[in-house]
Amino acid sequence: MSQDLAPGAPAVSPDHPSPPATDLSPIADAVESAGAAGFVAVGDRFDDNLRYLSRFGGPDRAYAVVVTPDRAALTAPGLFDEQAQREFVDAAPDDGVAREVRTENQGDPAGVRAAAVLDDLAENKGDDDSRTVLTPANIPHDAALYLEDAGYELSSTTAVADARLTKTEAELACLRRVQAVTCRGMARAEAVLAAAEPDGDGLLFEGDPLTTERLRREVDAEMARHGIRSAGNTVIGAGPSAADLHFTGIDHIAPGETVLLDISPRGPHGYYGDLTRTFVVGSDGGWERRAFVAVEAAHEEALETVEAGVTAGTVHEEAAAELTAHGFRIDSSEVGFTHGVGHGVGVSLHEGPSLRADAPLEAGTVVTIEPGVYDPDTGGVRIEDLVAVTEDGDERLATYPVRFTPVASE
Amino acid sequence: MSQDLAPGAPAVSPDHPSPPATDLSPIADAVESAGAAGFVAVGDRFDDNLRYLSRFGGPDRAYAVVVTPDRAALTAPGLFDEQAQREFVDAAPDDGVAREVRTENQGDPAGVRAAAVLDDLAENKGDDDSRTVLTPANIPHDAALYLEDAGYELSSTTAVADARLTKTEAELACLRRVQAVTCRGMARAEAVLAAAEPDGDGLLFEGDPLTTERLRREVDAEMARHGIRSAGNTVIGAGPSAADLHFTGIDHIAPGETVLLDISPRGPHGYYGDLTRTFVVGSDGGWERRAFVAVEAAHEEALETVEAGVTAGTVHEEAAAELTAHGFRIDSSEVGFTHGVGHGVGVSLHEGPSLRADAPLEAGTVVTIEPGVYDPDTGGVRIEDLVAVTEDGDERLATYPVRFTPVASE
Repeated sequence: MSQDLAPGAPAVSPDHPSPPATDLSPIADAVESAGAAGFVAVGDRFDDNLRYLSRFGGPDRAYAVVVTPDRAALTAPGLFDEQAQREFVDAAPDDGVAREVRTENQGDPAGVRAAAVLDDLAENKGDDDSRTVLTPANIPHDAALYLEDAGYELSSTTAVADARLTKTEAELACLRRVQAVTCRGMARAEAVLAAAEPDGDGLLFEGDPLTTERLRREVDAEMARHGIRSAGNTVIGAGPSAADLHFTGIDHIAPGETVLLDISPRGPHGYYGDLTRTFVVGSDGGWERRAFVAVEAAHEEALETVEAGVTAGTVHEEAAAELTAHGFRIDSSEVGFTHGVGHGVGVSLHEGPSLRADAPLEAGTVVTIEPGVYDPDTGGVRIEDLVAVTEDGDERLATYPVRFTPVASE
Repeated sequence: MSQDLAPGAPAVSPDHPSPPATDLSPIADAVESAGAAGFVAVGDRFDDNLRYLSRFGGPDRAYAVVVTPDRAALTAPGLFDEQAQREFVDAAPDDGVAREVRTENQGDPAGVRAAAVLDDLAENKGDDDSRTVLTPANIPHDAALYLEDAGYELSSTTAVADARLTKTEAELACLRRVQAVTCRGMARAEAVLAAAEPDGDGLLFEGDPLTTERLRREVDAEMARHGIRSAGNTVIGAGPSAADLHFTGIDHIAPGETVLLDISPRGPHGYYGDLTRTFVVGSDGGWERRAFVAVEAAHEEALETVEAGVTAGTVHEEAAAELTAHGFRIDSSEVGFTHGVGHGVGVSLHEGPSLRADAPLEAGTVVTIEPGVYDPDTGGVRIEDLVAVTEDGDERLATYPVRFTPVASE
């Protein structure tokens, strides 16, 4: 089945890249240098730290990953033994941390199982009698209490978030393909907008009033055809609703309005794409045109600024300076440039590094660059790309044209 | 754009139903009867309790809901003030609990903000000086510590899970539409299978070898066209991989193999569908035919058994008895009937009630009925429907034919 797409969308391979393997040695090292018995994370399939640590696509009930200086265990939930073995053990890299799946006591709470496995792993390796256990700060409270009941003292660690900051080549391959499919979703939306016809106060597409929801379905279906799923945040606004940063509702689209599409789908391995474009059908060259010119310039300026060693906050400041020069405010939470210039992306849609931080950007981090300006009475314009920071600049993870007036398929 | 669908899929309305409103009075009552200062839940958009309590489609960073006997507050994350107001306050029902959105201190951790709001709400209403706060057992540990630092003593409650058990008419409307779209995804898969042609050891579709991944993309794209998204668990197995209860990988599909499709998408309001069918292209009438006949009989028997007042475990036992009568094992974790007969579905894919429990089923609960039998060397057969328990039986939330040999579009 063929779909009309606007020109310039990248080709995509039919296949998903191989799942990335996680090097657990930074976690093992954190355990070792803290003199702790181990590290424990507890959560379900929606916990991105667990996804990263285990590469296990588990169920919607809690399981645990336990890491000691040289061993790691996943407490497989009932009915998930084989999948856990395949994803956590068989696919593990050679990082000096021996993986195993533990299947005993599947009826017990995940925290109880984690404490028992930690006892066992620490004992087996003839460790000292440290009773400190490192955990993410947001470990479920019941799991924390079970660990304390077993005699452990909890100490929170940022080791997982730190390890996630810099992406491996395998992670970049996942991100590139998700982003390329995201571009194809955008190309479908652009083609629909280009084919839409003004009819009174609205636009018509295939005989029906064109809404943000219809556009959303077209985008999401195009991405699904390539095996990438909407993560429930295909943000599409039109006119005033384009000034709402997270609009996923239903709005009729009118000629002359900014149509802002911010598409953030998720691949089968958990990695996100993130792409924003803004189009106007039948502009009369007012606010929306000025806003577009300003945001396009800020977007280019910010991208020019990105490279390893540059202070992350500098990227934000460069975008803000460009928007100021074009006459837009940067000091309000409602009008003008109201948000940060970007954020890290990986197995979470929003993760490190922060682009407001004073720390220098590191090569291998992946960030969005997404300046925008908004007027709640009129509309919003945002342009966003996803880039990997490199030693001398950045790699756009996929490219898509920046156009004000939507273009139909070639 | 039209797609071939197998016959029998239900029509679906183009529009999503109105979002359900949550009656918070059971939570307020739990606070009152515990003599507690309030109830606090903390989490992000992936926390289904928070989704249920707030109807807020928040971001992937933590926020909190605080409930006292007559007031409730949502601590809006930065950049989400208006959306929180719209979804939590403006859409609230008349349940005697006054809603408000709190926007102060957005830079503080969610647990710190929750403690401050709880202090404020308790003080405003001239409550006694109770310092007990009810929370779900899995509240993030850092939030629990912040509440304790503020002088509260935590007590875990199942009040939210209990409230979620019985669905309102508005929730049923969401579940019905998601399940109807799920049926259309299944109808697309069945049409593809019916159109596939044996070619040596495999099946060809539109000139390419047919894989589980291709089928998955066809299903997910069809659902996306109706505004319903894959939740990352469109389970499709063929032959031995059909015996893997959670197979989301890539497998070539051969003639004579069981092709098992378990489709569990999620609607924009968070409610899940859940439907399983098993097809065979070019069966020679071996194990797969016997398994299908047995599972179809067990599925019908279990559905016959469902009604308010029947012990939930009885439904499981009736299905198991039918499978035993057909010569399949029910005592193994690998061969035969290896899992429970079903589970509750709502804003989580797996929630209460348990179908192994001794407690009677209640009218208004929504459960899957999904017996299956498996042979890891050969394949798997499962048939699943989603039903609401009623006083005198059940309502199938959407209907889809049960067929062994796939049928093309009419």
